[in-house]
Formats: sequence, C-alpha cells, structure tokens
Amino acid sequence: MSAVKYELIKQCKQSGARLGRLHTPHGIIETPVFMPVGTQASVKGISPDELRDMNAGIILSNTYHLFLRPGHELVKEAGGLHGFMNWDRAILTDSGGFQVFSLSKLRKITEEGVAFRSHLDGSKLFISPEYAMEIENALGADIIMAFDECCPYPADRRYTKNSMERTTRWAERCLEAHKNTDKQALFGIVQGGMYGDLRKRSARDLVAMDFPGYAIGGLSVGEPAELMNQMLEETVPELPVNKARYLMGVGSPDYLIEGTLRGIDMFDCVLPTRIGRNGTAMTSRGRVIVRDAKYAHDYTPIDPECNCPACKNHTKAYIRHLLKAGEMYGLRLVTLHNLYYLINLMKDIRSAIMEDRFLDFRAEFYEKLGGRRC
Amino acid sequence: MSAVKYELIKQCKQSGARLGRLHTPHGIIETPVFMPVGTQASVKGISPDELRDMNAGIILSNTYHLFLRPGHELVKEAGGLHGFMNWDRAILTDSGGFQVFSLSKLRKITEEGVAFRSHLDGSKLFISPEYAMEIENALGADIIMAFDECCPYPADRRYTKNSMERTTRWAERCLEAHKNTDKQALFGIVQGGMYGDLRKRSARDLVAMDFPGYAIGGLSVGEPAELMNQMLEETVPELPVNKARYLMGVGSPDYLIEGTLRGIDMFDCVLPTRIGRNGTAMTSRGRVIVRDAKYAHDYTPIDPECNCPACKNHTKAYIRHLLKAGEMYGLRLVTLHNLYYLINLMKDIRSAIMEDRFLDFRAEFYEKLGGRRC
Repeated sequence: MSAVKYELIKQCKQSGARLGRLHTPHGIIETPVFMPVGTQASVKGISPDELRDMNAGIILSNTYHLFLRPGHELVKEAGGLHGFMNWDRAILTDSGGFQVFSLSKLRKITEEGVAFRSHLDGSKLFISPEYAMEIENALGADIIMAFDECCPYPADRRYTKNSMERTTRWAERCLEAHKNTDKQALFGIVQGGMYGDLRKRSARDLVAMDFPGYAIGGLSVGEPAELMNQMLEETVPELPVNKARYLMGVGSPDYLIEGTLRGIDMFDCVLPTRIGRNGTAMTSRGRVIVRDAKYAHDYTPIDPECNCPACKNHTKAYIRHLLKAGEMYGLRLVTLHNLYYLINLMKDIRSAIMEDRFLDFRAEFYEKLGGRRC
Repeated sequence: MSAVKYELIKQCKQSGARLGRLHTPHGIIETPVFMPVGTQASVKGISPDELRDMNAGIILSNTYHLFLRPGHELVKEAGGLHGFMNWDRAILTDSGGFQVFSLSKLRKITEEGVAFRSHLDGSKLFISPEYAMEIENALGADIIMAFDECCPYPADRRYTKNSMERTTRWAERCLEAHKNTDKQALFGIVQGGMYGDLRKRSARDLVAMDFPGYAIGGLSVGEPAELMNQMLEETVPELPVNKARYLMGVGSPDYLIEGTLRGIDMFDCVLPTRIGRNGTAMTSRGRVIVRDAKYAHDYTPIDPECNCPACKNHTKAYIRHLLKAGEMYGLRLVTLHNLYYLINLMKDIRSAIMEDRFLDFRAEFYEKLGGRRC
C-alpha cells in the first residue's frame, strides 16, 4: 500500500484536463495543484502560517540544499522536515539531481552516481541513487523523487538516450533502496529530452516498475513552449490514469494552464518567489513591475481582483517605496501576492474542470492577458 | 487644546517610576512604552498586522529618511503616514535632526538651519526648523518632534552650550511654524550634552514654552550608563508631571528599566530590529546569538518563557539554519521576537509600577540576567 494515492475525480469533457485528489499522510490535496518552493526548508520570506492562510496544501523542498545545509541527519533528528520547519501539511522533496547538475561544480557522472563539489564550500561529495534515498528518507517528505539526470538543453540524441536509460536504471535502484514506503511515496521521473520516442520509452519503462506517481523532468529548460507541449503530448498518454502526474519546475500561469490541459496534476516552480523578490507581481492582466516609476503615485493595489494581504492592505505606491528603499517587507508582500495568485489560479482551474469548461476558461485567460507577459 | 494629552495614573511608591496614559488621535497608549522604529515607513521585515498582534500602540518613523525617499509630499498625498503604510494606531516622527547629523555629509549649521548632502545621492539639501515642521505636518504623525541639533559626544562645554541654546531658539521657531496643532502634538527636545546645568537650562527654557510633551535627546550616544542616568536625574525633575517624557534612542532592556526608574514614559530604539537582523535575540537571561554553533541541535525555542510567534512555532536549531542559509524568514523571526520581548518587558514594568514594586522588579530583572549582556 502506497503512502500517497491519487484519486481521479473527473475528466473535463472539453479537454484532457482532470480533477483529482492526492491523499497523503499530511492531508488531502485537490489537484491540479501548484506547490510553492521552500528550497532551504523555508518558502523565502513567508511563514508556515501565511502558507496555510493562502491554502497551500503541499510545498516542495530541495534535497541538494538540505543535504549540504543543515544536513539530512540534523533534519531527521529534528523530526524530519515537518518537525524541523513546523509545517503539518504535505511536503515533496526533489532528489537533488537537478541541483547537482545546475549548481554544483566539477561533477562527474558514472553508472554508480554523481561526484561533485558543493557550491557552498567546494567540498567533494558523491550522491548515488541509494544515497539519495537515504537522504530523502531522513528528510521524511510525503512524496520523494527518484535520483535522475536532468538532461541539458539542447542535447544530441545519443547523449539524451544514454542519460535517459541511466536515469531509468537509477530509478530501479531507488525503488530498491527506498525504505519507509508506508509513510513516503517514491515518484519516478520521465526523462528523454526533446525526443518524443525517448520520452515514451522512459515513461513505459518507469510505468512497468509501478511507481505511485510519475514526474516529467527536463522540461521548461529553455526550449520553446510548443516543444514542451509536444513532449507532454507524447508522454502523458503513456502514464496510467490512476497515478498523479507532476510536471517539474513549471510555474508561469500560461504553462500551468497548458500543462493542465495536457493532463498534468502537480506543478512546482521558484518563479513566483524569485520574481517576487525582484518586485515583479503576477496578475491576471500580466506582470506588474511594482518598482516602475509609473507606480510612484498609484494608490491602488497590485491587483484589484486579489484578496491577498498585500492587495487588501497596501498600495502599489507604498510597496514600490519599500522596494526602492530596500525594505524586506516589500519583497515579502510581492512574494506573498504571487503565491496567492498562483494558488488561486489553480483553484479557478479546478472549478473550470469541474464545470467542464476548461477550454473556455483557457480562452478567457488569454483574452484577459491580452498578449502581455504572464 | 493639544492633540496629545498625558494622563498620570500613578506614581510608584518605591521609586520615581510612573504609570500613565497617552491620549492620541490614534488611540490610547499605556506608558511607560517602547516604540518600535519604522525608519522608512516600515518596521523592518514586520507587517502592521504583526505589530498589532504584539500590542504595539505607537511606532516611530524617521523624517529625514522619508523626506529623502519617497518625499513628504507623496506621503501626504497618500493620506499621511497612517494611510501610506496602513497603520491605524499612533505614530511619532522625529525631526530629522539626529539623522542630518549622523548620516548626511558635508553639513553646515547656521542659525537659519542645516545645509547637508543626502546620504543617498549626494544632492544638496537644507532643513530649517520651519521646513522640518512643514515636512512633519505633511507626514501627519500624532506626535512630531522639534528640529534640534543632537550634540556629539564628547563635546566641550562651549560647543554644547551654543548648540543647546540654538536648539532652544529652533524649538521656539518650530512652535511658531507648527500647523495642524489639533491633530499633531509637537514635543520639545532637551539637549545640553553631559553638563547637568545646561540640561536644566534647556529643560526650563523649553518648559516655559509649554510643549505638550518633552523629549530628552543627545543621550545614549556613547557615554557610560552612569553619566546618562545622572543626566536624567538632573533633567527629569525640571519637567512638568502632567506632560509625557520621552527618552530618545534608548532600547536596551536595562536602559528601559533605568529610564523608567527615573520617571521616563516613552522610549524608542532600532536596537531590537537591528540586532534581530544580525540574528541576536533579547531574552530575560541575556542575549542569545542564535547563529552560534552551540544551537545547531537545540530544539528548544529562543526563550521558553516567550509567547511570540517565533518562540511558539520554531526552535533555535531551525532559526539558526535559516540565518546561516541567508533565509529572510530567519531575520523576520528574531526581529519579531525582540520587539515582542521589549513590548512585554514594558507591560511587566507597568504591572510592577501599578503594584508599587518596581524596585523589586528591577532587582529581580538584574538577578535573572546574572551579569549577562542584555
């Protein structure tokens, strides 16, 4: 019996979008869902209470970062991530694979695993699929991810195929090494770069191993949106309908809609928190660069349709002042708004699926956006 | 009729400490009180809701900073500081005098006022007592301060006397220039450096002008604690019992106690927020340097006796991790704790005065502190 179970509620009659529930040891999550990212056991600047207030049911944390600091043994001693950060709802940890490839230095990949140097102090480290499981078991998230290689973009077919096949072999080793299956569900990660047949191969091989859920990795890495959508269309039909599907590292509103359209249930991304810290807000009418001079005397909220604490309590003129003056509270407000916006966008998406009007919802979304960047 | 009225509730039978109420257009404040500092219209990292939750009844904001950025005219247009930052309780603004002398460059003092260069962009600026009133009237705080020179320490008697006498003449010009007296109360500032007779002279001359409240400036500028206490003892008896007394720039727990003992009603300081951002917490048993290695595995709160959100929800080990990892939420938590600690210390001080046991309270405070830095 898996620790996490996906329940399909309904399929939209207009599209491939689907409505579901993810049953986890720390609560039931309505899907499709956006998961805020708390890289180092903290969603930057935001308290667990604020995350609860915005109805975040699941957050993501990064194995690579926590492995380096404070160390997974310490987190385990503190009662796992839930105890350490005082978050009683669901948590997902990635496997560290993505960061090993994007952040660390002098990495060397062998069949055994990846040797690399810490981006913090240059120390020599090694992570194998077995060690990734040991770390993720110590962190104790409800959903843990298999150790994979996130294939760079662009990459030739030969490199991509080798990498994908190794990731599949690693997935098998992860499945073998994973303890604590009654409390933590291990998801496999489909790779295969921008090659449809490799994606299909990867998906089929993983599905044969019967994971409780499947992620699609290695997308949104710089490729055009059409290519990403094409890869989703090649991959998703290979995945079982009774398991959750998670598109990794995707968080812009249009991508959430396009992923949902193609049958994705879960998303995560640092985008809302990262651009929030730069003072850029997401709204239904496109991005608002709050520090722009044109908002200096604008005494209206970031988004008049939004009910988040930033929009209920403060004006663009005030938040702009905070950002210009380097005040922490400004970053906090825009970050809070962005998370709130995405979580409520997903809520609206779920309502649209429930009412079999997701394609209409999508058309209205783009119409309102009016070609602006979202 | 002044906008702000001090009501003496009772005098401690054990000491010079007194209990009072400050009636302002934005609420009644129990005194003695500590006022958190929101230099740039924001208490660093903390929301107005969080300030309300910790029972802060009055906060301070800095005229010099707001004059430079975003400009007092903009704040006025936004509905004054209360509207601009969305804070419905009382606000006090300093006059900018202190920052002109401590932050700006190439300043030149004349009888007319002070010419200086902005510490932000080097632009040439000039503030006179009349202009300080214009700025503070635009900011719209409940209590505004007269424009003064904060005499450096050490300073010889001749310099100090000239400076103090000019500050007194400037106070008279401020009184003359202050509009909006029905909504904003102008407090005079006693100067006189470390010379008891000059302090007395300053106090008497200001009292003759009948301000609705009096501040004591130019203390806690590097002098020994005994010298500060001596200056308070020379000054406070010159001040009328039916007016509030405000010791500027003082915020360490022992100084709050020593000031209260000598009849002070109001305090402000950046200390709790500044050291909070360095990860240093104030507790009844002395400072806790949360980032110290010894707390790496400490799964107890910063202060087990504290009910603030940081102490109720998080351990030292977690907060230390956040600080080490450069996570904003860590700074926020320690800052929140420190403000909470001081506001509750003042509450305990008020209870002790009410029960005529302030000297006992003070003895217990130092005993518990046990010689540690507070």
